[in-house]
Amino acid sequence: MTSAILTDLALAHLLADAARAEILPHFRQPGLLAQNKETAGFDPVTVADRTAERAMRDLLTLHRPQDGIWGEEFGRQNGTSGREWVLDPIDGTRGFISGTPTWGVLIALSDQNGPTLGLIDQPYTRERFVGAPDVAELVGPFGTMPMATRSTRTLDQAILFTTYPEVGTPAERAAFEAVAARTKLARYGMDCYAYALLAAGQIDLVIEAGLNAYDIQAPIAVIQAAGGVVTDWRGNPAHLGGRVVAAANSEIHAAALDLLRTTAEG
Amino acid sequence: MTSAILTDLALAHLLADAARAEILPHFRQPGLLAQNKETAGFDPVTVADRTAERAMRDLLTLHRPQDGIWGEEFGRQNGTSGREWVLDPIDGTRGFISGTPTWGVLIALSDQNGPTLGLIDQPYTRERFVGAPDVAELVGPFGTMPMATRSTRTLDQAILFTTYPEVGTPAERAAFEAVAARTKLARYGMDCYAYALLAAGQIDLVIEAGLNAYDIQAPIAVIQAAGGVVTDWRGNPAHLGGRVVAAANSEIHAAALDLLRTTAEG
Repeated sequence: MTSAILTDLALAHLLADAARAEILPHFRQPGLLAQNKETAGFDPVTVADRTAERAMRDLLTLHRPQDGIWGEEFGRQNGTSGREWVLDPIDGTRGFISGTPTWGVLIALSDQNGPTLGLIDQPYTRERFVGAPDVAELVGPFGTMPMATRSTRTLDQAILFTTYPEVGTPAERAAFEAVAARTKLARYGMDCYAYALLAAGQIDLVIEAGLNAYDIQAPIAVIQAAGGVVTDWRGNPAHLGGRVVAAANSEIHAAALDLLRTTAEG
Repeated sequence: MTSAILTDLALAHLLADAARAEILPHFRQPGLLAQNKETAGFDPVTVADRTAERAMRDLLTLHRPQDGIWGEEFGRQNGTSGREWVLDPIDGTRGFISGTPTWGVLIALSDQNGPTLGLIDQPYTRERFVGAPDVAELVGPFGTMPMATRSTRTLDQAILFTTYPEVGTPAERAAFEAVAARTKLARYGMDCYAYALLAAGQIDLVIEAGLNAYDIQAPIAVIQAAGGVVTDWRGNPAHLGGRVVAAANSEIHAAALDLLRTTAEG
């Protein structure tokens, strides 16, 4: 089979299907933590994480030998096409080991300008949030539904998410809290699912720090396709990670950015 | 139909089915917040909340006219049997309006000593966590599975959840943080789903404050049926709400209680 008959989006779905099949049997199983006991500190990398990335890499090697691959588990492999598949088999491993359906499989296809196609897949809830040129949809147990971000205009009507209350450094936490204090509601603990909810028009802002490229490239593609805006805290491209603000629209993005810029410079 | 042919557990399932049918069409719908704009402050009570409780009350009036009912939306109605059904149609309304599948329908049957039967139902993920005499099971999209709490013995191996980082008063927050600092992992934002995860053997501790009776009675029944322990922060019964510590087993409960007692007295 050659790439000619398999579109990039179809291939991305195949990758997500393969990852689901590898990961789901390990979710909520007793004994999941066994192998972490041998490692120093807290590093909840699981067999599921590795086998899922391996399965996705195998598919890419078969169908897109010319593309690069950048995966959370097995690193970066250069291609010749100028395109790169960016993979995080289980984003939100702490959520995964806690049994919460907040982790996800992240798959993005990027060129030198950033991601153009992305999937956030939640295998347990069987929800797949898809963003690509002219495609923004949630494929789930209740069918396929178009996604669009919200039109909330002011922070006092906005719902904000981040994963950890501490966010990052003390300065980063202060910057987050400066925004949170102005919103209607701030919530925690959703891992990559928060970005999916933003794309699906359920929430207005996600603010995080300390991200890796493979944590954010798929969310960027999904959110942009649904009408949202994702940048770093200075308004620059965020696809290499770091401090990220994702917003439902440019107005709410500008309002959050103003506060982040002011506070985070300290 | 009379109560003779419908067991309490079968009736509880009927209530949960009825609540699901009322609530699910309202979840993640655009315009959900419309009616909140007219109310002062932030009070995300929805049509779904009220119609679901009404549907459950109608079933109880039909099948158990002698039992009392205590519901979050429509208050308390005395019965003559000494038994009371305790209902929270949407526990976790802030999660609900954010689109997270962390809210739940809570149904408990109690006598003067507390709850003896409980259901935590998550309509979107189609998971129902059930606890009753000799029954502890998760009925979900992957079938019915027995539930048992974890055997974690020490705090440094424990996963702890609460809904809000602030927990409650500053003293309550400090008490929570005293425990959190000793655990392997503390996570946030799961609403009643955290209690379900504890019953299902995924996490070890849930610590909250400021709860109402209808927030905790179903979790108590589900967790106790699965082998866990739920009390207030002094080790007394928690079914009237307030400060609650839910634990996977008596050892981890005792360890948490020691820290909570010491810190929360301030």
